[in-house]
Amino acid sequence: MTNAKSAVLLLSGGLDSYTAGAIARAQGFSICALTVRYGQVHAREVDAARRVARALGADEHLELSVDLSALGGSALTGGSAIPKDRRLDDDEIPPTYVPARNTVFLSLALAWAEALGARDLFIGVNALDYSGYPDCRPEYIDAFTQLADLATKAGVEGESFRVHAPLITLSKAEIIRKGLILGLDYGLTHSCYDPDSDERPCGRCDSCRLRARGFADAGVADPLMTT
Amino acid sequence: MTNAKSAVLLLSGGLDSYTAGAIARAQGFSICALTVRYGQVHAREVDAARRVARALGADEHLELSVDLSALGGSALTGGSAIPKDRRLDDDEIPPTYVPARNTVFLSLALAWAEALGARDLFIGVNALDYSGYPDCRPEYIDAFTQLADLATKAGVEGESFRVHAPLITLSKAEIIRKGLILGLDYGLTHSCYDPDSDERPCGRCDSCRLRARGFADAGVADPLMTT
Repeated sequence: MTNAKSAVLLLSGGLDSYTAGAIARAQGFSICALTVRYGQVHAREVDAARRVARALGADEHLELSVDLSALGGSALTGGSAIPKDRRLDDDEIPPTYVPARNTVFLSLALAWAEALGARDLFIGVNALDYSGYPDCRPEYIDAFTQLADLATKAGVEGESFRVHAPLITLSKAEIIRKGLILGLDYGLTHSCYDPDSDERPCGRCDSCRLRARGFADAGVADPLMTT
Repeated sequence: MTNAKSAVLLLSGGLDSYTAGAIARAQGFSICALTVRYGQVHAREVDAARRVARALGADEHLELSVDLSALGGSALTGGSAIPKDRRLDDDEIPPTYVPARNTVFLSLALAWAEALGARDLFIGVNALDYSGYPDCRPEYIDAFTQLADLATKAGVEGESFRVHAPLITLSKAEIIRKGLILGLDYGLTHSCYDPDSDERPCGRCDSCRLRARGFADAGVADPLMTT
């Protein structure tokens, strides 16, 4: 079905996973993109994931549903209001944290990779995320990689999975610069958490504000804000 | 919503998870049971899970759907025929292995536990399973436990999750004996993998044959076979 150079990419439709996918392509991987409908209030991002998967020339784009909103515990799945105008450099883990979300996502990516015969997973977590979300830290990614080999038939048979997090040490501005060098059109992406915003981002949720600061620091205009 | 003594139990409707749940109850936990519809061909087991959750007096019983059959790679999700009359003590991992299934299940259980404020997860894996399935081995359970603390807000805040696998060293006969001492009615459970079997188990798939051998070794009759 696929060759040894295929990678499974977790693709949300935001700018990070788009950039992670472009890096995977630049490294010679063909892309099997996985988007999860997890009960996120900003399900509009899935439309962006479809545009981005096409732009990346993905071999396959699979959408899976698992309703994490039934489990509760997050503003991002409707448990409370999406915070606006929050202090961004707060030490606290924000209410948009979704319990164990990346573990659910990576386990689904691992399942698909094993079935495909792929051994490489890509996830767009980065330094900004891991200052707030525990499941974006380098030590978390390392622990999942170790688990992957213990969890699978492929691992027992002596193969190793690689979980690539190529943005993990990068700031948003560095991610944007890297993506622009790779020719990406960030106008395809969606970042806003607000379920009530229309095509235009709300500009006030954490995701909008981190994105705006990233474009400002990179010294370029966000195509979503110029149309 | 729940107190510190609640545990999330992964409940399939088979005899192992029923027994694991009864052990959790005997240890003083109240039960939040989680059953996953994952595209298993023997989805009839979910009816058994409902009966078992009632019998265990679960505080809650949540059914989540995630279609692992879309990812492929297993006879248990329709990728190939359910094997019949297979040599049971074969060293090979059987075609009923579902890629990364327990990692998907445990990650969902972890997400729910964190949202509930529970720190204990129960899973009914056992020695028979781990002679065939990689994600049933003690070293796998240990690795997931380590991951859980790195993956979560609760873990970052200094709390620890415990993944209980109380059957992990037990044979099927030992599990059955333990369950009978605890007063369990195994007539409520469903083990057969065959999607075409009616209420009566096929008797020829691995699951039926391991169950039959377990009851024979325990020296008791299987209530499913006597009605």
